[in-house]
Amino acid sequence: MDISKALAGARLDKLSRQPMYLQIAGIIGEKIQDMVFSDGTRLPPERELAELFGVSRTTAINAYRYLEKQGLVFAREGSGTYVAEVPAARKDGGRRVPWVQLMTPFPKLPLSTMLREILTPNVSGGSMAGMPDPAFYPVDLLRQIFAGDNKSMDPVDLGHIATEGYDHLRRLVARMLVGRSIETTMENVMITAGSQQALYLIGKAMLEPGDYVVVESPTFIGAHQVFSASGARILGLPVARQFPFSLLEDYLIRYRPKLLYLIPTYHNPTGRLMPENERRELLRLAARHRLVVVEDDPYSELYYDEKPPVSLKGMDAYGGVVYLSTFSKVLFPGLRTGYVVAHPALLNRMAMEKQFIDLHSNNLAQWFLCQFLQSGLLPGHLALVRGEYKKRRNALSKALRRYCGEELFFEAPRGGFFIWCRINRSILSSRLLQQVFGAGVSFVPGEAFYVHPREGERELRLCFVTQAEKALQESARRLARALAQLKRAGKESAVLANQPVKPIV
Amino acid sequence: MDISKALAGARLDKLSRQPMYLQIAGIIGEKIQDMVFSDGTRLPPERELAELFGVSRTTAINAYRYLEKQGLVFAREGSGTYVAEVPAARKDGGRRVPWVQLMTPFPKLPLSTMLREILTPNVSGGSMAGMPDPAFYPVDLLRQIFAGDNKSMDPVDLGHIATEGYDHLRRLVARMLVGRSIETTMENVMITAGSQQALYLIGKAMLEPGDYVVVESPTFIGAHQVFSASGARILGLPVARQFPFSLLEDYLIRYRPKLLYLIPTYHNPTGRLMPENERRELLRLAARHRLVVVEDDPYSELYYDEKPPVSLKGMDAYGGVVYLSTFSKVLFPGLRTGYVVAHPALLNRMAMEKQFIDLHSNNLAQWFLCQFLQSGLLPGHLALVRGEYKKRRNALSKALRRYCGEELFFEAPRGGFFIWCRINRSILSSRLLQQVFGAGVSFVPGEAFYVHPREGERELRLCFVTQAEKALQESARRLARALAQLKRAGKESAVLANQPVKPIV
Repeated sequence: MDISKALAGARLDKLSRQPMYLQIAGIIGEKIQDMVFSDGTRLPPERELAELFGVSRTTAINAYRYLEKQGLVFAREGSGTYVAEVPAARKDGGRRVPWVQLMTPFPKLPLSTMLREILTPNVSGGSMAGMPDPAFYPVDLLRQIFAGDNKSMDPVDLGHIATEGYDHLRRLVARMLVGRSIETTMENVMITAGSQQALYLIGKAMLEPGDYVVVESPTFIGAHQVFSASGARILGLPVARQFPFSLLEDYLIRYRPKLLYLIPTYHNPTGRLMPENERRELLRLAARHRLVVVEDDPYSELYYDEKPPVSLKGMDAYGGVVYLSTFSKVLFPGLRTGYVVAHPALLNRMAMEKQFIDLHSNNLAQWFLCQFLQSGLLPGHLALVRGEYKKRRNALSKALRRYCGEELFFEAPRGGFFIWCRINRSILSSRLLQQVFGAGVSFVPGEAFYVHPREGERELRLCFVTQAEKALQESARRLARALAQLKRAGKESAVLANQPVKPIV
Repeated sequence: MDISKALAGARLDKLSRQPMYLQIAGIIGEKIQDMVFSDGTRLPPERELAELFGVSRTTAINAYRYLEKQGLVFAREGSGTYVAEVPAARKDGGRRVPWVQLMTPFPKLPLSTMLREILTPNVSGGSMAGMPDPAFYPVDLLRQIFAGDNKSMDPVDLGHIATEGYDHLRRLVARMLVGRSIETTMENVMITAGSQQALYLIGKAMLEPGDYVVVESPTFIGAHQVFSASGARILGLPVARQFPFSLLEDYLIRYRPKLLYLIPTYHNPTGRLMPENERRELLRLAARHRLVVVEDDPYSELYYDEKPPVSLKGMDAYGGVVYLSTFSKVLFPGLRTGYVVAHPALLNRMAMEKQFIDLHSNNLAQWFLCQFLQSGLLPGHLALVRGEYKKRRNALSKALRRYCGEELFFEAPRGGFFIWCRINRSILSSRLLQQVFGAGVSFVPGEAFYVHPREGERELRLCFVTQAEKALQESARRLARALAQLKRAGKESAVLANQPVKPIV
């Protein structure tokens, strides 16, 4: 058969997030699996393939390489690319079943896969996700703890345990929190697979379609996604110099929201620190309106100037604060171990949901954390990373002021992972990302953190903890260069003007 | 105030699963936290408390001990028990918030907490859950692998990874499965937090309220629970000497079920092995009706006679089989690491759900499994446990035949963890459990595994892998003794007669 002809009808989706080479590989791979192209057929030369799809030769080469890795084609030196012999089970396998039709409708979130993409380690070594620097992961301590004396690991500890987690770890976490002015005991603590899971369980236990949830805007993507996926309607509280109490009260009276989700300490993405007086006022308002406040607190131990005020949970006499935190940010993300502090009635209900999801969290991570906390290793580790991250925060803010002082507006945060910038020109941050990504610099465009589309288009979140000072300075220089290029190009101003909403007919 | 008077109105729920001492502690604790009993108040002496609630003195002592551990009371030597000074934050804390009213309705499953209770390690050392023996957990290998040479652990491996799991582990799992006649590649493999999570994700991705799901009856509790919780209606296929093809076909025509969930190899709880001809027939039927089959396969490597037939997935030319398995049963449960093999379209959708739940599974367990599989350690470990578990299966079946041959009917399984017994008398297995539990023997009553209430009342699942041969023989002797006692008591026959359904007015 004439392969080129068979492919000629195929169209690439230029607006898709999927790279061109994967789209091409998908089209050819499908025809191989559908047995349209049979074993041993010679495929078009790379140059011809490139022309056929109107792409570069590199893209065509990458498409063939991908298919080769999948075992669907093979290259013969000097002769070209051929359809491989595909095992019968893979040929057509799974294609007769209309999987997509069999699936439940997935919540249409504009950014539903963005979080996953941000987390997937990118080769260029960029620093998009909020990832602590691997150089500070306590790998040696991890190895020592596992290698430690025989008695430390009882095989029984590797069996099934209660859904709420190891009692020993729950006790150690409670003790640690008492040291941070949160009066609590083991009964109020549950171990989760990162604080992402705690958010999911709160959604399952508390939210029904039609419920209202108030979140800061911008806020952590994962929280927004989980609440939306449970069918809740999201109300945004703009993050500004002052906490918008009157808007919150308005929401409370008008919508009676089920809960308010906050990151009061070194907010993600803006870095904002909620001052003590605002915390007190918020708790008064919450008590008056019987509002449940979910306090997400991953960063409070990562302060680089003075200690932050006591957490909302620590000040909470009313009892409506549910507190979440995690070891992912201070130790390493792969631990996937966080915790919730809440009333036992809520914890119990969350544990019933968790039982369906994974029975209980991983024992290796829990066991390691028991040893780590028990040996008193956390304070030293925290002191180390605080010292290093402080230098990085200083280096990046200084370099940004020096190189991008006119183009970017930002305030250096007092803790956490991020510097939040606003572009002082009519340049879209997504466009800026395209421009710098090739130069090995990355960030998360502001729109990822907003409740409504088109917000945050000129904002960006830079993470300063993953790279060392020199690299951060270089990144700031490259950002400046990209901003200058875009300014010169000057084409962006049109893009930012409000586009009329065209009906799709 | 007169404490005894304040307590006199309180009632214990004698039918509750909660022990009496905890109920008493709850009643007193509540009054302390509600500030009904104030700091320093002397509580009734233990003897008086026992009389007040009509319980033993030990129960009263335990209630005070529990309150003391919670920091709500303190004992003064020779003088009695007093209300402690409770920090303001805990006093009344969380009680003003009506948590229970704030929560979403929980699916009313008669056994919703049973799984959690079975999994919670019980002190008497019983063997209720399907737990491999801790004596065979590869703890030394685990320690060696973590302590191994420096180069083996790259800190980057401890950061965030793709939701689907480490590529390296997915590749190793695919390779392992190819060795078990399942033609697959990394793209079809996703790592999950145990196969429980795989079931949950399938439910999220495929089931909507009103969908039908066919399961074997009896079957694994966790699967039944997850499917019910997604609102699916469950149709049961009785497990019998022959697979009920005509009933399944009836279901397929009448209800068009979304999926069929099966454990074809060493079925939980019955131990049944689906023969090869039935597997082929099932796949023909599935292809004809475009039925999705979820094959749960945790036990197939734990065969004690000949190897089992190839899995459904391995025979599946039609492409409708989704395959699940786990390392929990062959290595240790605390790994919480399982995997799904499915069409990439379904995997991708499941990964989107998983991202909301935990971003990705724990890296420590995944990293360990990479090293373990890569070093070729699995076959040796499997040979070891197969040898040991075979001896145990033989020991327990021999002892059961010898001591309970008349009272219990069972067939020794050819693999897996369980012996499924039917009581040949009118004795309820739940009653038998009460009788033997005190003697340190435990099992799961049959009704836990059934779709409908009142089924399996005279059946029980014994697990033979957790204890050594001597202990298993002793357990069989104790079971026989308990059966004899119940037979003599003879009171049970009445209980088993069908009770009339009385309207609740």
